Amino acid sequence: MSVTAPRGFEAAGVAAGLKSTDAPDVAVVVNRGPLKVGAAVFTSNRAKANPILWSQQVIQDGAVEAIVLNSGGANCFTGAFGFQTTHQTAEKAAELLSVSAGDILVCSTGLIGTGDEVFRAKVLAGTEQAIAELSRDGGEAASLAIMTTDSRPKQVAGAVGGWTIGGMAKGAGMLAPGLATMLVVLTTDAVLTPEEADAHLRHATRVSFDRLDSDGCMSTNDQVTLMASGASGIAPDPDEFRAALAMACIDLAEQLQADAEGASHDVRILVQNAMSEDDAVEVGRSVARNNLFKAAIFGNDPNWGRVLAAIGTTSATFDPYEVDVWMNGVRVCAAGGPDRPRDAVDLTPRATEVIIDLKVGAATAAILTNDLTHDYVHENSAYSS
Amino acid sequence: MSVTAPRGFEAAGVAAGLKSTDAPDVAVVVNRGPLKVGAAVFTSNRAKANPILWSQQVIQDGAVEAIVLNSGGANCFTGAFGFQTTHQTAEKAAELLSVSAGDILVCSTGLIGTGDEVFRAKVLAGTEQAIAELSRDGGEAASLAIMTTDSRPKQVAGAVGGWTIGGMAKGAGMLAPGLATMLVVLTTDAVLTPEEADAHLRHATRVSFDRLDSDGCMSTNDQVTLMASGASGIAPDPDEFRAALAMACIDLAEQLQADAEGASHDVRILVQNAMSEDDAVEVGRSVARNNLFKAAIFGNDPNWGRVLAAIGTTSATFDPYEVDVWMNGVRVCAAGGPDRPRDAVDLTPRATEVIIDLKVGAATAAILTNDLTHDYVHENSAYSS
Repeated sequence: MSVTAPRGFEAAGVAAGLKSTDAPDVAVVVNRGPLKVGAAVFTSNRAKANPILWSQQVIQDGAVEAIVLNSGGANCFTGAFGFQTTHQTAEKAAELLSVSAGDILVCSTGLIGTGDEVFRAKVLAGTEQAIAELSRDGGEAASLAIMTTDSRPKQVAGAVGGWTIGGMAKGAGMLAPGLATMLVVLTTDAVLTPEEADAHLRHATRVSFDRLDSDGCMSTNDQVTLMASGASGIAPDPDEFRAALAMACIDLAEQLQADAEGASHDVRILVQNAMSEDDAVEVGRSVARNNLFKAAIFGNDPNWGRVLAAIGTTSATFDPYEVDVWMNGVRVCAAGGPDRPRDAVDLTPRATEVIIDLKVGAATAAILTNDLTHDYVHENSAYSS
Repeated sequence: MSVTAPRGFEAAGVAAGLKSTDAPDVAVVVNRGPLKVGAAVFTSNRAKANPILWSQQVIQDGAVEAIVLNSGGANCFTGAFGFQTTHQTAEKAAELLSVSAGDILVCSTGLIGTGDEVFRAKVLAGTEQAIAELSRDGGEAASLAIMTTDSRPKQVAGAVGGWTIGGMAKGAGMLAPGLATMLVVLTTDAVLTPEEADAHLRHATRVSFDRLDSDGCMSTNDQVTLMASGASGIAPDPDEFRAALAMACIDLAEQLQADAEGASHDVRILVQNAMSEDDAVEVGRSVARNNLFKAAIFGNDPNWGRVLAAIGTTSATFDPYEVDVWMNGVRVCAAGGPDRPRDAVDLTPRATEVIIDLKVGAATAAILTNDLTHDYVHENSAYSS
């Protein structure tokens, strides 16, 4: 159930003092090969953290030896000093692993603006300690070390036809899509070329993390990485691998949604019969980002008027006066007018499903989001203090 | 201090039982001329309420005799029956005023989906009662009748060079720009052509209500109306009128901001040195709509990292690593890095100013927004129940 489930990977997670608690905060995942294939997608936020700027260079040639991740500081908007910290982290790991620094990915997460000399010293010491503790059982420890406001680690693993996919993720706030929306490391012992790894990863993120929009806020540090060791010796059927990787990513995305800061409902917004997948995503996202809708769900209020007011702001093809809206199995709006009474809807379960039927095409997409709660406001008004 | 401040206007506000309290809920403002000039801008939400669909027809010829407004029900997504209700309201007012129904604007506000037979009967009776009570002192009563979750009425009036502008507004939630974002009625006794009224109104809304983005949620019922009676006999200097109308609209927009649902901070986001006004607005709005930024302001936390993470999602021209951010007079971020310490910033006053200096051009825009608070979540999780 971790990044070390596939053969060829070792990992570790250690406490380097970056967090104010004694919790682990530096993780390393190393690919022992024989292949050293890597692919990654990054936040589309133009405000990119130093580790993103570094990792975008590293991934160019499709070769990755290891990834170093820290929580307790985003190393974003920390200037040239911050970029040097990332560079030195890669150099430190490369030296200890006897590989090239140009094949070491780095990820950071935590408060933006954190990245001073103390931060640098702790990250470098933590990297050294983690590499000393690398093991085939280290996946769990690594998944703990990347947590920030997460209440629990997120991991996945599954074996298909002789090869295995493993993964870990962190993310509880600033959860909205760029290309990626959190730190995720996926591993596999399947035999993949860099091009295959990249194509499979882009497909998987498109239908998983890109469909998660907890709070509409896009991070500066998001990175989803796939490393392939080839240790199974098996070149997978492309369709089979693509489907398995997408399933692993959807599993992790749902774990992220279930642990979103302060949330009391996990809302799946299913948009049906759209003209295109893009339309379905745009419509779903407009609802996911509507604070009035999100507050109504917190109040167990099936306020379908707020759904229609939200989708009316999109450019998707549909007639607002033909749309049906279902909430937890009850059609509350039919053809743009009231249908079943609001009190027929039970919104008390955490799992909530809203179906929006646009009635114009055959495309479908589901967006995952959360409600807007007192706990969300509390956690995010107190985070940096 | 009301819509009846300019000569040529009468108004009334009455309680017709649309609200569950005994508060007034139907308002009428009548233009006694000699001119009957009108202009209006409407929500750009594609999900438009029945009164919007009606009023868009009425305004075509630039002639308006009167406007009927109700709170206690939005008459949105209420089907053909709801449209007939709006039509009958205009017919009723026209009959009693001995004018054409095609010159009667109608506005509604309240819960989406409300507009049944009881609603219709009360609106028609309220219209009749309000017209019976029309007076030169009725502006205040009208401003009370259009309130929903507003805690106080919003009015404005000012005399310039022989002519006067008056106005009233309502709006406390779903406050985000379409073309207009709330119900607003502006009156003037200046002599204007329909074309002048339209041009002045579009300019004024662009720099006022369009810059107010309290919660990012666009309404289905927004309408800003200007009526000109010409009763002063004075054709104003165009630049002078344009400036005065813009000032009146900015005054009302600030009153709306100050009464936004659950807010504890009025935040003015001033974007400076942008390449274009559109860029400045896009950058300011991205911050105004960022829930993490809004929650931080609630917590009196000068979290500039969230400002940079928000503006990084825009397509405006600037380099994230050159941007300065000031909060209440303290530069907390210089050239994309930490500057003055966070504890130098006092965010306890309700009036909050965030300055974002993009350093690439000469354009400026200010966006008005509010923080994200426990009271906002509470009010909007309980609104329809």
